[in-house]
Amino acid sequence: MGHRLGDVSAPARLAAPDEGIGPDELALATRNHGLPLEALRHDLTPPGLHYVLTHYDIPYIPDATAWQLTLGGLVRRPLRLDLAGLRAFPQVTTRVTLECAGNGRALLTPRPVSQPWLVEAVGTAEWTGVPLRLLLAEAGIEPGAVDVVFTGADHGVERGVEQDYQRSLSVEDATGGEPEVLVAYAMNGAPLPPQHGHPLRLVVPGWYGMAHVKWLRDVSVVDEPFTGFQQTVAYRLRERPEDPGEPVTRIAPRALLLPPGFPDFMSRTRVVRPGEVPLEGRAWSGRAPVTRVEVSADAGHTWHETVLEPDDGHRWAWRRWRLAWTATPGEHLLSVRATDAEGHSQPLDQSWNRGGFAGNLVQRVPVLCLDVDAPA
Amino acid sequence: MGHRLGDVSAPARLAAPDEGIGPDELALATRNHGLPLEALRHDLTPPGLHYVLTHYDIPYIPDATAWQLTLGGLVRRPLRLDLAGLRAFPQVTTRVTLECAGNGRALLTPRPVSQPWLVEAVGTAEWTGVPLRLLLAEAGIEPGAVDVVFTGADHGVERGVEQDYQRSLSVEDATGGEPEVLVAYAMNGAPLPPQHGHPLRLVVPGWYGMAHVKWLRDVSVVDEPFTGFQQTVAYRLRERPEDPGEPVTRIAPRALLLPPGFPDFMSRTRVVRPGEVPLEGRAWSGRAPVTRVEVSADAGHTWHETVLEPDDGHRWAWRRWRLAWTATPGEHLLSVRATDAEGHSQPLDQSWNRGGFAGNLVQRVPVLCLDVDAPA
Repeated sequence: MGHRLGDVSAPARLAAPDEGIGPDELALATRNHGLPLEALRHDLTPPGLHYVLTHYDIPYIPDATAWQLTLGGLVRRPLRLDLAGLRAFPQVTTRVTLECAGNGRALLTPRPVSQPWLVEAVGTAEWTGVPLRLLLAEAGIEPGAVDVVFTGADHGVERGVEQDYQRSLSVEDATGGEPEVLVAYAMNGAPLPPQHGHPLRLVVPGWYGMAHVKWLRDVSVVDEPFTGFQQTVAYRLRERPEDPGEPVTRIAPRALLLPPGFPDFMSRTRVVRPGEVPLEGRAWSGRAPVTRVEVSADAGHTWHETVLEPDDGHRWAWRRWRLAWTATPGEHLLSVRATDAEGHSQPLDQSWNRGGFAGNLVQRVPVLCLDVDAPA
Repeated sequence: MGHRLGDVSAPARLAAPDEGIGPDELALATRNHGLPLEALRHDLTPPGLHYVLTHYDIPYIPDATAWQLTLGGLVRRPLRLDLAGLRAFPQVTTRVTLECAGNGRALLTPRPVSQPWLVEAVGTAEWTGVPLRLLLAEAGIEPGAVDVVFTGADHGVERGVEQDYQRSLSVEDATGGEPEVLVAYAMNGAPLPPQHGHPLRLVVPGWYGMAHVKWLRDVSVVDEPFTGFQQTVAYRLRERPEDPGEPVTRIAPRALLLPPGFPDFMSRTRVVRPGEVPLEGRAWSGRAPVTRVEVSADAGHTWHETVLEPDDGHRWAWRRWRLAWTATPGEHLLSVRATDAEGHSQPLDQSWNRGGFAGNLVQRVPVLCLDVDAPA
């Protein structure tokens, strides 16, 4: 008759065939939010339009000056730094496209029951902070170090496990230069908003969002592989519950289309009028630079190469692509797919795993082109 | 065989018994978002945490200096004003709690199919702008004026009707002082974010969100009652489709509880440990000042009066309330309800209308209090 943590958690599960989104998924969907796709027009996503996924509660940190980051474990000189102390280190700004590892989950069959993203769990911002490798060099990593563990201030329970949110990187990834990991204190030139980790977060360019630990309060160097919940239970690519699975790491290539014309409120179907319709959108990959974006206006039967704009030195950010499309009256299904320099491309049919992670199925946008004489 | 607007719109409908949230409702839920309830701690909701509901697309307005507001119709001197012109008028700042008229819709049985809000479609901000009555006085309303119509730049189709978003107020409401309607160009001291109407929106303190027209581009004084879609088809309180219904206007009283303890990721159930648990939250009403907030820890059987903090002169904003609760091991259902000076209170059982508007059913927050010896 005890009252224990396990009582509030249900096991991970898949939705039954034709099971609609349930109350638990809806509660997540009303808290978290995606990028409204029309915001793909902005090079940098304005605050409030960038996707947000919070596992537990957003911590309330009214006084950022009191925040302290500890860096310890297997180091010669443990550090304790406030924001002023962090600002004394060299400052780097990196433009990063951040995507949730669960983006696309709600389109899967069967659907893993969790935050029900469609395609919009993405955003691009400029993050400013200290390269993590400089902090680790200052502390001095001791021989035998294996992983670097990052702890956030967000606290909750997940499948019966009470925890502060924690993730790790290998020492190699944590100290590498490609990408260079940041301990960031600014987003688009302003202090971090509460929902993006105020006052401090990790930024791991090219990696899915789960690696970018928010409300970062501790960095610990450890001498064996980190086995925390978010590393070994969640965020694994597995087909069956008992599989150990592969870790979720870098972002697979994806392109999104800024839906043309105007929408119906409820169906979100797009409406255009006959004639040339400029199409544009963004494409990104955390694995290798995007080299090609194609559009199909006939549900994937034929594909047209788009014009891909230069990255202007922003390797870790999305690139804009453009194509003029001539719309004729009738129903059309627009699709877009990206390919990166390593030859990774987006599938036309879903790949599937139990967590609904790292999917990059091509986006499909239904468009109705009105008759020429349709009433304005 | 024509391709017409009506093809993209489905009629308004109610969900079948036990019908889960569908793809169309989910598409709205991933675009729009509520206030994560832990953000009730903030007097002013930080950008990105305030609720957002956009009917169509968020217009892309890269150059606010080119924006023009026209004010015409039944006036002696039509006006055309840019932001600089508006700033030349006296400036007022008002703290306003804004709530979506559809808040609570997804909890109704049967569920009206639309944006599926639970309880979180709310936020509080300080809006700065010009009192609308000063602009109307400058233009000079002619005799015979009945309504003032507000047109936004957001364009879409809804139930087959292509439209710019439009709403009206009576001349009396538009020129009144209680509340004083604003044409606002700043939110919390900064230019409006894109999703909140950049560069200009209407603010009608005490009214549900549909009245606060965003991306405001035109104000027109008319000599007969406005019959636009959002005034006479949507946003009506009706039991049957054929009823004309009553208009949705001012915000009914509501209190929300900042969920105590910490959450389970998926169920959002709250976990606390035995002992005193400080409870707090906010309460508001657009009808009359909130005079009383009560909390129940036993699913509504008994109620305890909370301490309601003063409004500090912010009549149109939420007020904080507090109560210390002693948690004992076991499952608890916390509820909170507000009463205003006109005696309006929150119902324990749902009221219902086909649009799911203006509901204010009491919030219910399941909490598990662990045993004293439960593992940390």
